[in-house]
Amino acid sequence: MGKYSIGLDFGSLSGRALLVEVETGREVATAIMEYPHGVMDEKLPDGTKLGVDWALQHPQDYLDVLQEIVPSVMMEAAINPKDVIGIGVDFTACTILPIDDDGEPLCFMKEYRTQPHAYVKLWKHHAAQDEANRLNEIAKNRGEKFLKRYGGKISSEWLVPKIWQIINEAPEIYERADRFIEAGDWLVLQMTGEEKRSSCSAGYKGLWHKQEAYPSKEFFKALDTRLENLVEEKLSTDIYPIGSKAGELTESAAKLLGLNPGTPVAVSIIDAHAAVPAAGITEEGKMLMVMGTSTCHMVLDKEEKLVPGVGGIVEDGMIPGYFAYEAGQACVGDHFEWFVDNCVPLAYHEEAKERAMNLHSLLTEKANKLAPGESGLIALDWWNGNRSILADGDLTGLLIGCTLRTKPEEIYRALIEATAFGTRMIIDTFEENHISIQELYAAGGIAEKNQMLMQIYADVTNREIKISASSQTSALGSAMLGALAAGESAGGYDSIQEAARNMTSLKDLTYKPIPQNTLIYDLLYKDYKKLHDHFGLGMNNVMKRLKDYRRKTS
Amino acid sequence: MGKYSIGLDFGSLSGRALLVEVETGREVATAIMEYPHGVMDEKLPDGTKLGVDWALQHPQDYLDVLQEIVPSVMMEAAINPKDVIGIGVDFTACTILPIDDDGEPLCFMKEYRTQPHAYVKLWKHHAAQDEANRLNEIAKNRGEKFLKRYGGKISSEWLVPKIWQIINEAPEIYERADRFIEAGDWLVLQMTGEEKRSSCSAGYKGLWHKQEAYPSKEFFKALDTRLENLVEEKLSTDIYPIGSKAGELTESAAKLLGLNPGTPVAVSIIDAHAAVPAAGITEEGKMLMVMGTSTCHMVLDKEEKLVPGVGGIVEDGMIPGYFAYEAGQACVGDHFEWFVDNCVPLAYHEEAKERAMNLHSLLTEKANKLAPGESGLIALDWWNGNRSILADGDLTGLLIGCTLRTKPEEIYRALIEATAFGTRMIIDTFEENHISIQELYAAGGIAEKNQMLMQIYADVTNREIKISASSQTSALGSAMLGALAAGESAGGYDSIQEAARNMTSLKDLTYKPIPQNTLIYDLLYKDYKKLHDHFGLGMNNVMKRLKDYRRKTS
Repeated sequence: MGKYSIGLDFGSLSGRALLVEVETGREVATAIMEYPHGVMDEKLPDGTKLGVDWALQHPQDYLDVLQEIVPSVMMEAAINPKDVIGIGVDFTACTILPIDDDGEPLCFMKEYRTQPHAYVKLWKHHAAQDEANRLNEIAKNRGEKFLKRYGGKISSEWLVPKIWQIINEAPEIYERADRFIEAGDWLVLQMTGEEKRSSCSAGYKGLWHKQEAYPSKEFFKALDTRLENLVEEKLSTDIYPIGSKAGELTESAAKLLGLNPGTPVAVSIIDAHAAVPAAGITEEGKMLMVMGTSTCHMVLDKEEKLVPGVGGIVEDGMIPGYFAYEAGQACVGDHFEWFVDNCVPLAYHEEAKERAMNLHSLLTEKANKLAPGESGLIALDWWNGNRSILADGDLTGLLIGCTLRTKPEEIYRALIEATAFGTRMIIDTFEENHISIQELYAAGGIAEKNQMLMQIYADVTNREIKISASSQTSALGSAMLGALAAGESAGGYDSIQEAARNMTSLKDLTYKPIPQNTLIYDLLYKDYKKLHDHFGLGMNNVMKRLKDYRRKTS
Repeated sequence: MGKYSIGLDFGSLSGRALLVEVETGREVATAIMEYPHGVMDEKLPDGTKLGVDWALQHPQDYLDVLQEIVPSVMMEAAINPKDVIGIGVDFTACTILPIDDDGEPLCFMKEYRTQPHAYVKLWKHHAAQDEANRLNEIAKNRGEKFLKRYGGKISSEWLVPKIWQIINEAPEIYERADRFIEAGDWLVLQMTGEEKRSSCSAGYKGLWHKQEAYPSKEFFKALDTRLENLVEEKLSTDIYPIGSKAGELTESAAKLLGLNPGTPVAVSIIDAHAAVPAAGITEEGKMLMVMGTSTCHMVLDKEEKLVPGVGGIVEDGMIPGYFAYEAGQACVGDHFEWFVDNCVPLAYHEEAKERAMNLHSLLTEKANKLAPGESGLIALDWWNGNRSILADGDLTGLLIGCTLRTKPEEIYRALIEATAFGTRMIIDTFEENHISIQELYAAGGIAEKNQMLMQIYADVTNREIKISASSQTSALGSAMLGALAAGESAGGYDSIQEAARNMTSLKDLTYKPIPQNTLIYDLLYKDYKKLHDHFGLGMNNVMKRLKDYRRKTS
């Protein structure tokens, strides 16, 4: 009889379970359920209004989804619960909540139901920007070493700004909370009774480092005297590497999920990061691009090297035994979506309708007829700022080369090319800093669907691109970590390399650079870099001035 | 009894007659007729195919239109032909044709009916670009002084490249032609039997200068030995200032037009330039902008000063006794048209349809709600190259400041602002070179219709803008020149100043700069200038490289 692992993938809007055959990686059953409360960005369930840039979730949703999707895959697969040898969990991060000493979310308590700060702050809760700005200024002035591991800037999305906002706006919640915890770690705690925090979320979002631990008390005190003992009083130093076991299903959890008590559960991992093992990447030299509305670039190395503009470097953050590097582009699919929403003329709508295509397909068909360089356009892909390598959210988009003959598909293609140049800039920066990138892997909706775009990426980066065979890479990665938590003796694996060898595969279709395209893109990339440096490195700060005028006038 | 003058305005697609009361400038009657053959850019009437970038007209059309529109205004006005004291003519330029020694167009002759080079080459015939390029190179290498009067570059639209193309492609036409003549001068010749060429077209389009005459024989020989005696053999040195009389209607012409023989006819003028007296501008310090698909900027001064990027400087070219300066923007209304054709989303089409508005009106309404600086965008208005002050057709458009929240109306407004910054750049360049611009006047469709745009121009240039009351400024200017040809003794005027005082007026509505807008536009203009210089003066030639890649790949 086969052995199975369940990967649980908790995204921004829904939770997914994927039941996988451990020996082969075959995806046997899948179930998905949306969170009943979704993202609360206007009001709480009782009607309490939320401020601008807030984004909350309800932790009961995670439990409700869990109790629905796990029994659902078990029923679909029709297997014996004893053959489920492990469970892995990936979750969005930094997505945190305040809990009491029993692990109960404060928002479950009657007295806090109307208090927004008692709920889960979703990763994209952006209302702690003031705190993030102050943190960055103070850290910079103090010369805090940790800044360099995060490209010089801490995001408002991360742990410390979010907690600082709570202390500023709802000190009673900070007081009442026994601790603050990532939702992924909390879900593992619900299943196992064990609080074993993930090195991935602590490392990428919590400023934690395997050797240097958290920032110093002095630093936290410099932020706010009330934060001096944040780590000891409200967090945890029990942090475990990716690939380790957090605990086993409790009796009560097992009953709710229809599984056996004692089933091993892995330490949680961030959702995007779980795609790395799922793409079969367990060693250095291979970069994974998870491509969607934005793109996350991840690569492993045996050493810790400071790379400018990298989003985070975490030991054991994706694969045990490796330093895992993350970089990103803040706007990829979002560019193309903006263009389709705002810049496509009526005639194209009519043609798309007549031919029963969507606008993206129509534009792609037209853009695909253009040779590299034929549009005469070049863009800087900064419609949503620049995450890597400039780490500057105040940069904005640029389009150059327009004439009265410029067609929509030419702009569309220029935007795609710009994101490819942005990726090449990230790759080149890693390589200049001695992180080798020999192969490119891609996963995510864009990588699966848009062949023209993938070919442009191959041509621009002059690298073959391989595509993960699974379309549920995060859930598959979690299932692999579940098999690792079980271990070889239980029918799983003792090493992630072994798990990857057996459980992952690539699509047959790969994208190879076309030499004549690469030649012209090399020329265009020189121009991209020249513009990138001119507008991104302070030679002309017009983008910032324009944002400033905008703020003053609107 | 009143006295009347007829202004004849021959544009690209049609001819117009305007009958004006000389004492008051009252526009009594108007008639318009399209040229039967229109613009021939694909084939001749017999089907002979034309090459790329050709644009011809049929001279019979000018005669047919003339015989239709003049009797038409006479009938409408119901006046006695003896009360028509003068006729003025404006015409597009450089619009030239080969004629025999009787003034008969070669294309009227049976043997040349299938020869494209025997027809009128319309101003926008662009097939002599190779000749223009070679001319510019040779003139530059020889250090020809005349280049500076034309912003350093001669256009393929002008006289010498067009004739050179004929000698290269149809030497028999060059041989057979007794001379080449501007269509405006030819029409005057048809009416009066006198060939008195216009200083305006000869000066702006024929490289002629009042003191220095045409370029030297050595220069023409350096172009092509066959051109050595071009001026003596195929042109004319009988060139007369604007404001003078060319001759009087012949018996036969008078009969065809239903006017009296002996009616004075003025020396012809270029159509855009005729708007200067019609806007009441007869002295220095006042710039007229004729605003349409492109914009022509004209200003007078008592001295000849070399201004970088000026399109032409001609003594007596618009107003007798003054040096007249012309500059231009190659793309103004065309920008907004490109945007509406290519970049407006479906929802805007639907809103416009529902509210029975056109898209320009809808976008203007939305853009008008924005404060200066609020869009966060800035553009370089080079979608069709830059005419003044850079005189570089290989420059292209740039848009900077895009975000995922950028709306179509914000881009639309940024394009309008960019053209206003372009105009300010022209004004500043004139002023830096000691041509004072104290007042701005505007004429043309955009100036009459788009109040938001005119307010932006007033705010950006920090100058009050006055609008010509006539919507037929070129025809009115021609009628004024007709009254000048008649002279005071015949009920007309002896000076253009006197004519302007009596025959022109301005709209009551003027556009005054709004100080708080001017403040922010001063800041934005600094950024425009910085980008203008960076991309226009060779600091980064990316636009030219992109054009080059485009040429190589398409």
